[in-house]
Amino acid sequence: MGKPTPIEYADASPEVRAVFDDIMTSRNLKDVNNFWKYLARDPVSLRRTWESVKEVMAPGALDPLVKEMVYLAVSVTNSCGYCIASHSAAAKAGMSEAMFGELMAVVGMANETNRLVNGYRVPIDAAFDR
Amino acid sequence: MGKPTPIEYADASPEVRAVFDDIMTSRNLKDVNNFWKYLARDPVSLRRTWESVKEVMAPGALDPLVKEMVYLAVSVTNSCGYCIASHSAAAKAGMSEAMFGELMAVVGMANETNRLVNGYRVPIDAAFDR
Amino acid sequence: MGKPTPIEYADASPEVRAVFDDIMTSRNLKDVNNFWKYLARDPVSLRRTWESVKEVMAPGALDPLVKEMVYLAVSVTNSCGYCIASHSAAAKAGMSEAMFGELMAVVGMANETNRLVNGYRVPIDAAFDR
Amino acid sequence: MGKPTPIEYADASPEVRAVFDDIMTSRNLKDVNNFWKYLARDPVSLRRTWESVKEVMAPGALDPLVKEMVYLAVSVTNSCGYCIASHSAAAKAGMSEAMFGELMAVVGMANETNRLVNGYRVPIDAAFDR
Amino acid sequence: MGKPTPIEYADASPEVRAVFDDIMTSRNLKDVNNFWKYLARDPVSLRRTWESVKEVMAPGALDPLVKEMVYLAVSVTNSCGYCIASHSAAAKAGMSEAMFGELMAVVGMANETNRLVNGYRVPIDAAFDR
Amino acid sequence: MGKPTPIEYADASPEVRAVFDDIMTSRNLKDVNNFWKYLARDPVSLRRTWESVKEVMAPGALDPLVKEMVYLAVSVTNSCGYCIASHSAAAKAGMSEAMFGELMAVVGMANETNRLVNGYRVPIDAAFDR
Repeated sequence: MGKPTPIEYADASPEVRAVFDDIMTSRNLKDVNNFWKYLARDPVSLRRTWESVKEVMAPGALDPLVKEMVYLAVSVTNSCGYCIASHSAAAKAGMSEAMFGELMAVVGMANETNRLVNGYRVPIDAAFDR
Repeated sequence: MGKPTPIEYADASPEVRAVFDDIMTSRNLKDVNNFWKYLARDPVSLRRTWESVKEVMAPGALDPLVKEMVYLAVSVTNSCGYCIASHSAAAKAGMSEAMFGELMAVVGMANETNRLVNGYRVPIDAAFDR
Repeated sequence: MGKPTPIEYADASPEVRAVFDDIMTSRNLKDVNNFWKYLARDPVSLRRTWESVKEVMAPGALDPLVKEMVYLAVSVTNSCGYCIASHSAAAKAGMSEAMFGELMAVVGMANETNRLVNGYRVPIDAAFDR
Repeated sequence: MGKPTPIEYADASPEVRAVFDDIMTSRNLKDVNNFWKYLARDPVSLRRTWESVKEVMAPGALDPLVKEMVYLAVSVTNSCGYCIASHSAAAKAGMSEAMFGELMAVVGMANETNRLVNGYRVPIDAAFDR
Repeated sequence: MGKPTPIEYADASPEVRAVFDDIMTSRNLKDVNNFWKYLARDPVSLRRTWESVKEVMAPGALDPLVKEMVYLAVSVTNSCGYCIASHSAAAKAGMSEAMFGELMAVVGMANETNRLVNGYRVPIDAAFDR
Repeated sequence: MGKPTPIEYADASPEVRAVFDDIMTSRNLKDVNNFWKYLARDPVSLRRTWESVKEVMAPGALDPLVKEMVYLAVSVTNSCGYCIASHSAAAKAGMSEAMFGELMAVVGMANETNRLVNGYRVPIDAAFDR
């Protein structure tokens, strides 16, 4: 197969359109993001991924904005440019510049201290292992 | 040099003791964690890292518990066993089992979708890049 | 040194040309990919890397297409854009869109469950450790 | 919350037992692995993860053994000790030592060349981007 | 918040300008790199990060060029394109093409053998653990 | 296949013994490390990996100690416990505790700033891209 290409709504099968419709309704959008248009190449993955995302990112014991920040922290750690861009946008309404700055500071710090722990081969304190 | 070993308070230099004292006072602890005892091998790194951690993890635009959860999310993504254990403990007071479960679900989901984005080579939507 | 630049066949030393010739013959190509043109900056690495790739990716106990899919799975996990593009192309002849979709689904799932294991600190079952 | 602990079948809720039963039936096992016992702390994640794993790892356009090898390749890249142990066991029946050796050789090679590409800043060949 | 944008010297607060001035003086530059202009969005992180970088990258027990090479090795392992570009430039004066080639060879090799160790589940030799 | 197990010299084939002999001679050792004993399960990988390691880690444009430190920096970034232990030991003779402390500080800093670059989406300065 060649380079993956997106599937637009107009060209989508009924199965794919049903997922696109649910995304647009749930998130109050006029079109779905590129992520969903590319994933539509595999309608089974599209459906499963959307259902999981909808369930996982919904309000629950954690606030949706906290979830977006956690998602962003992972994407920054993994160097996923698209994911950083799309979830920065998703967090736009609720995240101030000061919140973003502190979020990045924690992510940077965690990536630094994780490696200090590795290098110094720090054993787990007995108190943490109970 | 051989395998790194920890420095206990009793054996620490005045410079290291000053940092240990500040950690114990700030966090209301009777002893510092292994992380600080190992890092004490390099007193300059010990001081700089503690001062940065204290500043970054303090309450600000983000709640300290949110910061602990973000720290945990990064550590889980990086497979840092010590960091997961110590920051799970740090978050103990404020994080219910339901919150932990949702946190892990978001971390897992982000690691999954980050890779779907890579594999399908999804370009950034124009709307995200403004 | 400045930004690395590629070495074209016309400008290559006899040592580099010998490797380029072997790549083109082995893979039935009219030109080598950018990867080899950049690596040609270090002729020793060029030779060693090509000899290793040729040996590792050859048919053996595993089918070459399976090897290409494993290579792609690692590259997607590591966010290596060039590697994803070049090995998607390499797998072009033998990999249908359905195979690609399932491959990405497994890669995404593995990256997700790897992190759930980390976060829940799951110990290895005795049965797996024999 | 403290260190996560497993939920055994005898102590599980009906909701968790239903998933455990399905895992044991589908895979012809007398007990579920630790992964599922720990994830049972969050019954919603347990159900969603099992349903996804069952769908993703089933025979389809790719052979289940190929899927196990891809899963293992990702886990080795991510340094997930539990995942390597459990999926080596899962692949036990179908994977010879020679297949395992070649699999590791491809995984090692991909992790090496991914970094050579990064360091030499190799641009994507026009032919790969169509 | 939207996409991060840089802060130029002319638009910077006195607090940010003081850091920019120190960077330009310390490194004998007429302008600061994009990294600092973006980080200036969070003046607290800007100051802390610059002070840490200045301390960590200064001559000490290790030569500054060795430090630049180690920084580059980490950035190549993490797929950080900006970091690779800026630290290749930083190492420009002191690193020959032969040194760069050997550096990349070691980085590639380490990323390969790290995964062979994971996959074969190699236990630590008693001699290394003392 | 089950859990990988090591091959001791006494049980090794002539092909494997030849590699073991060369390792012991080259490095002046009485026995080879576990890494080689496990990799001996695949004699072709054993030979190729040893020949590559011998070539890559030899003195050249970079000093062998610098190469060991770079190798360690990558292993710390990748959380490879065995690799950290064995290459700390390899660097033992030439690396003081102060050098180790600075090495870890650079590795930690690079892992931190790599993520700040990702999160702030810093574009490459024109000067770095020439």
